[in-house]
Amino acid sequence: MTTQAENTVGFIGLGQMGLGMATRLLESGQSLVVYNRTQDKARPLADAGARIANHPADTATKGGIVISMLADDAAVEGLFDDQLLARLGPGGLHLSMSTLGPATATRLAERHKAHGVDYVACPVFGRPDAARAGKLWLCLSGPASARTRLETLLAAMGQGVYEFGDDPAAANVTKLAGNFLIASAIEAMSEAYSLAEKHGVDADAVHQLLTQTLFACPIYQNYGKAIVEQRFTPPGFTLRLGAKDMRLVQDAARAAEMPMPLASLLGDRFLRMLAGGQGDIDWTGIAADQRQAAGLISQ
Amino acid sequence: MTTQAENTVGFIGLGQMGLGMATRLLESGQSLVVYNRTQDKARPLADAGARIANHPADTATKGGIVISMLADDAAVEGLFDDQLLARLGPGGLHLSMSTLGPATATRLAERHKAHGVDYVACPVFGRPDAARAGKLWLCLSGPASARTRLETLLAAMGQGVYEFGDDPAAANVTKLAGNFLIASAIEAMSEAYSLAEKHGVDADAVHQLLTQTLFACPIYQNYGKAIVEQRFTPPGFTLRLGAKDMRLVQDAARAAEMPMPLASLLGDRFLRMLAGGQGDIDWTGIAADQRQAAGLISQ
Repeated sequence: MTTQAENTVGFIGLGQMGLGMATRLLESGQSLVVYNRTQDKARPLADAGARIANHPADTATKGGIVISMLADDAAVEGLFDDQLLARLGPGGLHLSMSTLGPATATRLAERHKAHGVDYVACPVFGRPDAARAGKLWLCLSGPASARTRLETLLAAMGQGVYEFGDDPAAANVTKLAGNFLIASAIEAMSEAYSLAEKHGVDADAVHQLLTQTLFACPIYQNYGKAIVEQRFTPPGFTLRLGAKDMRLVQDAARAAEMPMPLASLLGDRFLRMLAGGQGDIDWTGIAADQRQAAGLISQ
Repeated sequence: MTTQAENTVGFIGLGQMGLGMATRLLESGQSLVVYNRTQDKARPLADAGARIANHPADTATKGGIVISMLADDAAVEGLFDDQLLARLGPGGLHLSMSTLGPATATRLAERHKAHGVDYVACPVFGRPDAARAGKLWLCLSGPASARTRLETLLAAMGQGVYEFGDDPAAANVTKLAGNFLIASAIEAMSEAYSLAEKHGVDADAVHQLLTQTLFACPIYQNYGKAIVEQRFTPPGFTLRLGAKDMRLVQDAARAAEMPMPLASLLGDRFLRMLAGGQGDIDWTGIAADQRQAAGLISQ
């Protein structure tokens, strides 16, 4: 029993992504104690052998590991309070897999350090199906010894780990840069394909050419297909989450005192769509906003 | 001699791209008569067996084929005048491989038709090295019978042909859509990598992660590498040509009465760089403008 408890890892946050990741960990033989604000979402994990905690701090054991996959910076800062960090205590480790701003990562790392807890950032690339299949791409940064300790857990969740050194902020900057590139690609395809459509050219034929040649990569192939087919529900990643990430990108640019004109354009695009009540569709839905602006959808 | 002359194809425009394409045609056994405003550029082709014409119209034979690869719409409209088209005459064919606006293609097709000449649009994707190696991607549209007639020539120049129907404007819209996607990717990487750099994160490490996973495709891999290495000369495709294409994209959007906010942003970026005297560097040089705006290059 002692060994079992010592090896048990905490997991907080069972949204679409967290649920898939936690399920993979259980499948790999990892014992878990899980917490979610809405307890119902933890039910499938309990059936698969996880213990359900009634309070976030109950996921922590002295010197153990807690993984978090939460919606935003405020959720992570709110849940990883002094109570939880005291329960983890010296030798404890928090593997923070949410997409957070670099300033938040720095602040969290300092708070963790005061309790002797290592803070490791590991935001992920991939949709819920990739999370469920253990095929995420992982961006890792934090103290070197803590990174080594996580190898088995990360191998269960990802198909590859890219390391960015000791500063937990670095992995978050990288993740934001990646999400910004994805949103930019969605914007560019939305504009290009609507131009084709308005000129009477088959957007799918344009998409086939471009994604079989110069842009033969997953983002253009998969997101472009959703754009051509105008398939924006169910969302793999909601516009609301995309808007949150664009805000984080713009905050990071402001903190570094540098302009990012395309990030500003995307920030406005997302805000207009949120204002229009479209926060819950997939972020490829940018194409719908563009088609409406182009007069391809009647108001 | 008659057969030889009948089979000889005209080729007008021996810039970096045209020279490579014409060389490939000669290598494939095609006899050529070539014209370039600056005759010196035709010298290597003469050595390889091409005949040099002193006047554009001298590249045309009755019912034959003339290929053009020129810098812009005005050059094509200027050279393919009534004199040249009368020389080509009924059964003649003009294979127009420059990147032109769709409105220009439509206007040229009408003018050609008045002389009984088929106008076929076939803009290409690929840099000068791809042109030289016969590895271009070809976007083809125009009358079906004329397209069939071109199969052997196109096979010598490209690694793949994508067809867009009978309307010559369609291939040009497709090509503009593609160049717009490339410029958008350059802009996005320029902003993302400068964000990483300003936050002290190794831009090359970010580039490696993204282009080995989500963006594992030629445009991101090759152009991103140039951006990370800040290698903007010698140009594969100049900023001045990029600016011309963005103008064509914006003209096509205006003609279709639709906004393209990212195209507008790019148009302004290119104009600012032209104003700064940077027209002759590669268009990945957008990254230099972004790094300067971010305070990463001293003024």
